[in-house]
Amino acid sequence: MSVLVSNFINGQIVASNSGRSADLFNPANGEHRGQVQLSSAEEALRAVEVAKQAQLAWQNTPPLQRARVMFRFKALLEEKADELATLISIEHGKVHSDALGELTRGLEVVEFACGIPHLLKGEHSLNVGREIDSYSLMQPVGVCVGITPFNFPVMVPLWMIPVALACGNSFILKPSEKDPSVSLALADLLQQAGLPDGVFNVIQGDKEVVDALLEAPDVVAVSFVGSTPIAQAIYSKGSANGKRVQALGGAKNHLVVMPDADLEGATNALMGAAYGAAGERCMAISVAVAVGDETADRLIESLQRKVKGLRVGPGLGVSPENEMGPLVSEVHMNKVKQYIQSGVEQGATLVVDGREAHASGPGYFVGGTLFDNVTSDMTIYQEEIFGPVLCVVRAKDYQQALQLINDHEFGNGTAIYTRDGDTARDFSEKVEIGMVGVNVPIPVPMAFHSFGGWKRSIFGPLNVHGNDGVRFYTRMKTVTARWPKGQRESEFVMPTMK
Amino acid sequence: MSVLVSNFINGQIVASNSGRSADLFNPANGEHRGQVQLSSAEEALRAVEVAKQAQLAWQNTPPLQRARVMFRFKALLEEKADELATLISIEHGKVHSDALGELTRGLEVVEFACGIPHLLKGEHSLNVGREIDSYSLMQPVGVCVGITPFNFPVMVPLWMIPVALACGNSFILKPSEKDPSVSLALADLLQQAGLPDGVFNVIQGDKEVVDALLEAPDVVAVSFVGSTPIAQAIYSKGSANGKRVQALGGAKNHLVVMPDADLEGATNALMGAAYGAAGERCMAISVAVAVGDETADRLIESLQRKVKGLRVGPGLGVSPENEMGPLVSEVHMNKVKQYIQSGVEQGATLVVDGREAHASGPGYFVGGTLFDNVTSDMTIYQEEIFGPVLCVVRAKDYQQALQLINDHEFGNGTAIYTRDGDTARDFSEKVEIGMVGVNVPIPVPMAFHSFGGWKRSIFGPLNVHGNDGVRFYTRMKTVTARWPKGQRESEFVMPTMK
Amino acid sequence: MSVLVSNFINGQIVASNSGRSADLFNPANGEHRGQVQLSSAEEALRAVEVAKQAQLAWQNTPPLQRARVMFRFKALLEEKADELATLISIEHGKVHSDALGELTRGLEVVEFACGIPHLLKGEHSLNVGREIDSYSLMQPVGVCVGITPFNFPVMVPLWMIPVALACGNSFILKPSEKDPSVSLALADLLQQAGLPDGVFNVIQGDKEVVDALLEAPDVVAVSFVGSTPIAQAIYSKGSANGKRVQALGGAKNHLVVMPDADLEGATNALMGAAYGAAGERCMAISVAVAVGDETADRLIESLQRKVKGLRVGPGLGVSPENEMGPLVSEVHMNKVKQYIQSGVEQGATLVVDGREAHASGPGYFVGGTLFDNVTSDMTIYQEEIFGPVLCVVRAKDYQQALQLINDHEFGNGTAIYTRDGDTARDFSEKVEIGMVGVNVPIPVPMAFHSFGGWKRSIFGPLNVHGNDGVRFYTRMKTVTARWPKGQRESEFVMPTMK
Amino acid sequence: MSVLVSNFINGQIVASNSGRSADLFNPANGEHRGQVQLSSAEEALRAVEVAKQAQLAWQNTPPLQRARVMFRFKALLEEKADELATLISIEHGKVHSDALGELTRGLEVVEFACGIPHLLKGEHSLNVGREIDSYSLMQPVGVCVGITPFNFPVMVPLWMIPVALACGNSFILKPSEKDPSVSLALADLLQQAGLPDGVFNVIQGDKEVVDALLEAPDVVAVSFVGSTPIAQAIYSKGSANGKRVQALGGAKNHLVVMPDADLEGATNALMGAAYGAAGERCMAISVAVAVGDETADRLIESLQRKVKGLRVGPGLGVSPENEMGPLVSEVHMNKVKQYIQSGVEQGATLVVDGREAHASGPGYFVGGTLFDNVTSDMTIYQEEIFGPVLCVVRAKDYQQALQLINDHEFGNGTAIYTRDGDTARDFSEKVEIGMVGVNVPIPVPMAFHSFGGWKRSIFGPLNVHGNDGVRFYTRMKTVTARWPKGQRESEFVMPTMK
Repeated sequence: MSVLVSNFINGQIVASNSGRSADLFNPANGEHRGQVQLSSAEEALRAVEVAKQAQLAWQNTPPLQRARVMFRFKALLEEKADELATLISIEHGKVHSDALGELTRGLEVVEFACGIPHLLKGEHSLNVGREIDSYSLMQPVGVCVGITPFNFPVMVPLWMIPVALACGNSFILKPSEKDPSVSLALADLLQQAGLPDGVFNVIQGDKEVVDALLEAPDVVAVSFVGSTPIAQAIYSKGSANGKRVQALGGAKNHLVVMPDADLEGATNALMGAAYGAAGERCMAISVAVAVGDETADRLIESLQRKVKGLRVGPGLGVSPENEMGPLVSEVHMNKVKQYIQSGVEQGATLVVDGREAHASGPGYFVGGTLFDNVTSDMTIYQEEIFGPVLCVVRAKDYQQALQLINDHEFGNGTAIYTRDGDTARDFSEKVEIGMVGVNVPIPVPMAFHSFGGWKRSIFGPLNVHGNDGVRFYTRMKTVTARWPKGQRESEFVMPTMK
Repeated sequence: MSVLVSNFINGQIVASNSGRSADLFNPANGEHRGQVQLSSAEEALRAVEVAKQAQLAWQNTPPLQRARVMFRFKALLEEKADELATLISIEHGKVHSDALGELTRGLEVVEFACGIPHLLKGEHSLNVGREIDSYSLMQPVGVCVGITPFNFPVMVPLWMIPVALACGNSFILKPSEKDPSVSLALADLLQQAGLPDGVFNVIQGDKEVVDALLEAPDVVAVSFVGSTPIAQAIYSKGSANGKRVQALGGAKNHLVVMPDADLEGATNALMGAAYGAAGERCMAISVAVAVGDETADRLIESLQRKVKGLRVGPGLGVSPENEMGPLVSEVHMNKVKQYIQSGVEQGATLVVDGREAHASGPGYFVGGTLFDNVTSDMTIYQEEIFGPVLCVVRAKDYQQALQLINDHEFGNGTAIYTRDGDTARDFSEKVEIGMVGVNVPIPVPMAFHSFGGWKRSIFGPLNVHGNDGVRFYTRMKTVTARWPKGQRESEFVMPTMK
Repeated sequence: MSVLVSNFINGQIVASNSGRSADLFNPANGEHRGQVQLSSAEEALRAVEVAKQAQLAWQNTPPLQRARVMFRFKALLEEKADELATLISIEHGKVHSDALGELTRGLEVVEFACGIPHLLKGEHSLNVGREIDSYSLMQPVGVCVGITPFNFPVMVPLWMIPVALACGNSFILKPSEKDPSVSLALADLLQQAGLPDGVFNVIQGDKEVVDALLEAPDVVAVSFVGSTPIAQAIYSKGSANGKRVQALGGAKNHLVVMPDADLEGATNALMGAAYGAAGERCMAISVAVAVGDETADRLIESLQRKVKGLRVGPGLGVSPENEMGPLVSEVHMNKVKQYIQSGVEQGATLVVDGREAHASGPGYFVGGTLFDNVTSDMTIYQEEIFGPVLCVVRAKDYQQALQLINDHEFGNGTAIYTRDGDTARDFSEKVEIGMVGVNVPIPVPMAFHSFGGWKRSIFGPLNVHGNDGVRFYTRMKTVTARWPKGQRESEFVMPTMK
Repeated sequence: MSVLVSNFINGQIVASNSGRSADLFNPANGEHRGQVQLSSAEEALRAVEVAKQAQLAWQNTPPLQRARVMFRFKALLEEKADELATLISIEHGKVHSDALGELTRGLEVVEFACGIPHLLKGEHSLNVGREIDSYSLMQPVGVCVGITPFNFPVMVPLWMIPVALACGNSFILKPSEKDPSVSLALADLLQQAGLPDGVFNVIQGDKEVVDALLEAPDVVAVSFVGSTPIAQAIYSKGSANGKRVQALGGAKNHLVVMPDADLEGATNALMGAAYGAAGERCMAISVAVAVGDETADRLIESLQRKVKGLRVGPGLGVSPENEMGPLVSEVHMNKVKQYIQSGVEQGATLVVDGREAHASGPGYFVGGTLFDNVTSDMTIYQEEIFGPVLCVVRAKDYQQALQLINDHEFGNGTAIYTRDGDTARDFSEKVEIGMVGVNVPIPVPMAFHSFGGWKRSIFGPLNVHGNDGVRFYTRMKTVTARWPKGQRESEFVMPTMK
């Protein structure tokens, strides 16, 4: 029973005529699941045209009514949560509870977008000069595009879609070709929620489609989440075509463990943050920085035991539930294993080797892997592995730990574990990272705040969702008004219009 | 099948032991419907105690979770809309569509309150001094009380309840004793929505209960909507007891018809604004100010015809629906008729006399009534009639119309009908009224803006719902923090204190 | 060379005809300095009338222009800082550097008010319904009154005046009759800054004037800072007369010293916070809560030494400068001494007795006084002494310390000294106090935040300065607008007006 | 007495070693005035390095202190206004009053930036989860670059500099090489105001310098104002290098004259808006759209008379002052004349020909020029002339006028003259232009609002100054914090870690 994942254009499932497609697999067992069509540039442009036309009426729908579509969308997402999470697990591999968690974080952005009548308020100034007023209208930008990664096939699209739509825009989603099925489920629910046809569209595809969207004159805003090289390319190309772009890239998130940390808490936090979703999260912790050798020794000891005890296996249908599923693809699994090998070769201490887990069975599994004595010149330190590999770096003191993070190319997330208010405050102020956790391992901002990194983890001045998201998806228009006198003083004369 | 309307305390319907009660009637036919209990001061204090205890846990429930109770409450209100509207009509008398409209406006405040995680944000300043930060926490105030009028038994409570609850407070509603049944329906839906017991309570009663609530030390905030004398008394007494109070009073809303107005539009607007809900609205238009005799003559001619054609009758079960139902009580019907008589005696021209409508039949009906040549010294101009009586005042010019409004005691709402930008702008700036319509007859602000008048139509600096509502139901706490050095620099040394 | 302090009305120094006056003294030497006139109710009403008339034109001055008066006022305050501080010291007694500090904090509110064009922005919503817009105008309230205490004769008036004026209001200041001279200096500088005559007025007086202002129908807003009984009386009376009132009362501010605190830092902080300005500050720390006997013992030891070494003496003309000046009056000095005596009698341990300092010399001096083993049933714990008396209470643990503070009648300020993030966070959330310092002894919010306590330290929902100040001094007007069609479609016909 | 305009780096005038320079002329008489050095890429990078180092300390200066530098800068700008305006006139050519006006608009941004402590506030959420808080820090981005045009050598730099500096950034200004002198005057005043050396730098140059700045890794943010092709190139190149860029381009601003307009007002408005500063303004009106031939005829008649009466001549030293000065350069003068010629050749009606004004004399003068019957296919309609040439287009009705504007490539400013509220509101909502005037010809938003166009008049999502400016010059960091328990409950036990 093979699936064929097509496009959703103008309120309908539409098959691509491109003749190209990509294979879909179930990473938990390696089975071929079907295909996703890879649409043509022409089809992408057709989606843009549809989105452009549909946006005109949607823009004129009052924000209060647009919000009510979001209210219904939220209710439907909750109703279908289990189905959606299952669909995520089948194509992505993450365990069911994790897929539900992803859904919840996406849902929260829908909840945020329900407040759009308030969020869209402009500013009004009476008497900027005598009898002259000035006020701003925050109007939709038009057609928006979202290009989203495989690792959060629901959450990342939902960082963008609810805000963009609630602001009065139309939207074209280009999902990852690795787990595209759930994108059509979202489209279906939006339609059920009352979104007019053509306002939300999904186009499956690869670089051909992306390039077409980045060049289409009617696409005004592009949101991207993925790796840094692609993010920069998207930002560069979209900008060269005059668009506003927010492009979020890779990460190498450090968690600093101070000597005064609650070590039990820190260890537990690291387990979830490093190995949850097999490390395929842009907010995963992939580096633990232990301050002081004593701290490091205790940390390694504690981690080692827990990593070895991780329940690794399929994300669905197992009781009790596994804690970590497979990687997304065979290619990626092999790449992660190569990273592990390079760590060994470059001199890191391989404390727990996850390469043997499920080595013989089906599915793209790599078990939890733990390195000690990692240094900043190693490949496993410098690059984003996107797998269940945690590197422990030993820092001699706090300053060295801080410097290490600030010297890294990426600036997405980080965390510090300490009881000391001064340490936490100094770290929060000085670390050159966009999202900082104090005793919180994965400090993803809530939907009503904004998600975004620093340095090469983001391109563009505005973060995702929260007020920044609203600003990104709106154009400001400032009106300055005064009125000629004369009419008021001549009340008794009827203005007529022969 | 007589009803007995009791209290809702700590999640349960609780009968009062006071031994006192008031009769309930169906104003459409005068039938005795049952009774509402009039609780004792002791029972009110018991409700306060319950609310105080329940608030402690509710305050610690994160705003996101509190918002989700509001999301569910919204869904339930929509599901039960017809039932609720019917309940309103039976006790209040307004026609079904009008009751549904009331419900919708209340529902919008629930929708607004769903955004509470965003709305509760405080301000954070990094480095108010070197390494000193300052930030504000907007915390709930504690136990809030709402004392609400008969004319909007759902909408006015919902101006207060969703915001107060979402901010983390507990709430005690003291509804009008004329149409109290629907208050228990709201309580039931809040409970179904997952609100913990004791966070929302209803206490039926009269002045005894009100006085007890205004004196109870644990009541921190009081919201009131009603007539101006009572509003001032509540404001005065609540303030004398150290509480924060917002007390909204009476109105005499003028609609100015300029010579250049769209007269057809203005007339239609007046019909709805003056006679809708039989004029029992604090935002009803009770005075039309026609600028110039020509305008006045045309307006009277147009209105006269329409007023005579008003479909007056029961609010339920009639097809096609009536446009206007009865007044709320026999006492009030007689009072309105006396006002009409005073208008005649003081020299106003009675163009359409509504006193004869249904005069012989059951129910508390007064038909649409229209006066011309009303002047500012007449009782029907100065006082709030709260009935289907529209007074036309003739102004010689715009300035006189404006002055008339500014000289009136009340300052709730007003409107102007004109095509001229200058006239509208001048009026908007200079009229001493809190809510101004430009070609909008009943300019009730949306839920995400705030409701409130000027002059003796409001007491207290903060309006209802919108940002002001959130501010009213929160206490600001400002934290200023810095940290002692020492821990960071001595990572390896155990912190000791000897 | 005796001074006679009169009123400033309509841009001129105007002598009162009341025939009543109060004596002024130099508290550093007890010398009679002159008199302040105590104006009559009639004179107060004359000031209201002047302020009402002047406000009309001032309101129509664009905010940008009003801000520029504030910019010039700031420059003048800086230019005259030394003179103003000297004037403060002469009548209040505080040392010169402290008077300059007071001035700076007041000046910061002037700086904040320079941003009024931004701060006054209303909200604008496009399409609240189809082709219906809604926006809010934040207009001045009219005539505002400030009634201010002796302890900050410049800072407290400047909490109110710049914001009220910048918002477009006129203002009447009723300063303390103990140190009124500087109020006229402020009036002079405002006039020099270009403020039109009548917009700012000063009326000297006592209860007669205050009552007249609270009853005057044209006074719309009243701001008060003083003791709690008077604050409540002002709030009660002003509210009964329909005004908006913010009334700030007394304080008993606790500083908690945790076992892990930086004790040296805490001790230094206590010295300034308890004895600065001789304790005559509503944000002074008058209670130190030492958690654990060991902490208490070390704290007492450290404090004892420093209190004994305090340089107490005249605030002007001494080199090096004294650290603490006299109390404001002989009456108050005696009252403080009685409090000390009551502490002894009720069983507190008098560690340092300040009653003997300058006992024989002139001036109203009480030296730094330190009590240990104070308990919550003692008068010196329960009441605001407003003198250089620090009470050390010993708490057995953190919970007890927190409970102690929450049980006190007042809720102005508090502080905690700790290194532990958890303790600080828990304290910040749970303490029922409006202004909280974490390792900051006197956590007065900056001008761009808002000042205000909780419980019986404030009456009214809005704090002083910051956004709350702007809200307090403005009335919201919400306009809802749509326009009739017809004109646009008939472009070629000239509207004429025969 | 020839001038040589050099760089200002690290607090000092520094001569360039590049060996390249450009000539400076006085456009009012064509006299050679001196030279501006054209710096090398290396020198630009040196400026970046200086700015990077200086920013570190400036960032740590509390916003309140940074604001005070702005307060002093404002005072100095006011003090030196006449000198600065003279310097503008000498190199740019605009008349003195116009130069003073430019200065005032720039000054207003400095005033806005004085409010930076308030404007920099982040958002704080208590309990995003139980005992987890989240808050945002708005931190400076680092080194900012401004590349500014000749037409407003003070105002446009001041759109950027005060906001960027107040936010804690350092700034490098690359002024136009046509009128660079005043840039050094600004640098001098900033230094006098107390800005630390290196925080503000000026580098003179051309494309070499610009390219170097766009490639320098340490430049984080680039603001540009100029023509659209360059704006797009800057946006594209800056973005390709990973920077945040706001690039404002060209304009073709239409003013619609409706039949019901106050024609006298509209004509006067057009005179200033079309010919002020010789049309060298990105907000100049270069197209008047007359709705209906009758309107057009009356407009042309009225304009013709006034254009012929324009006082054209040198901007300095003439009494009474001239109304319009020369164009900025001989090259530009010739280009404008060619545009006029093309208009004639393509069939427009040349009503007033400005080419003969001062034709024989010195200076780069073109007189006020008026075309009638311009159509959308003509070059003078499509391109930005940046000269004193007003094109009248005749539209048959409002819809055609609106469509004309929406079809144009540019979207900077526009205006409509009408008395009709409906027309104004419809135009404001539907016109695809960033800044809209209703009976206001040049609707430049105030400093506390934001400047920016739509379509190809801006690249990047954020406008200039106002809240958008603050957002552009800051990076958001979101902190999520919770704390481990344990310390509070064990006050007496020394925290140990073994």
